[in-house]
Amino acid sequence: MKISIDNLHKAFESRIRLGIMSALSVNDTLDFNSLKEFLDVTDGNLASHIKALEKEAFIGVKKSFVNRKPNTKYFITETGKKAFDNHLKALEQLIKSQK
Amino acid sequence: MKISIDNLHKAFESRIRLGIMSALSVNDTLDFNSLKEFLDVTDGNLASHIKALEKEAFIGVKKSFVNRKPNTKYFITETGKKAFDNHLKALEQLIKSQK
Repeated sequence: MKISIDNLHKAFESRIRLGIMSALSVNDTLDFNSLKEFLDVTDGNLASHIKALEKEAFIGVKKSFVNRKPNTKYFITETGKKAFDNHLKALEQLIKSQK
Repeated sequence: MKISIDNLHKAFESRIRLGIMSALSVNDTLDFNSLKEFLDVTDGNLASHIKALEKEAFIGVKKSFVNRKPNTKYFITETGKKAFDNHLKALEQLIKSQK
């Protein structure tokens, strides 16, 4: 028997990152405060996990101005969508192996 | 909408720990080398994750002698079983929310 953890992506180990990816999978774009509210985390914590996912090119940023105020929105990339999907499939496999 | 990551246990964020818990869920006991083989990890890496799970009282250790050689076996505790089960349920919820 070999437990298949190889298909679990290290970038998604943190539950906050799982949460970010989940939220961005079901919403086209979300701004920082909405993400923060969804996940109930601190600014610093959220920012560092967003940065890590951006570095992997799993999420992207859209910067614009709304009423002259800067507005930053995050979205999931195609790469991110595929990687997250594979990760969830691997988790599903692991859960199935327990039943 | 609130993404439920609160029920994901921090102790199980690492995929190696997920693997250890999975392996010990479906085997009554396993020794160090079997776990190592299942998960395809280095000694040091496995040892540190085993230690962390022991500290949480999620896994326990049975030490004995076989042919005068020390034999160390790991098993999942009742606490560990419950916690892992809750974690898998939370992951299942998260996966479902994506469908």
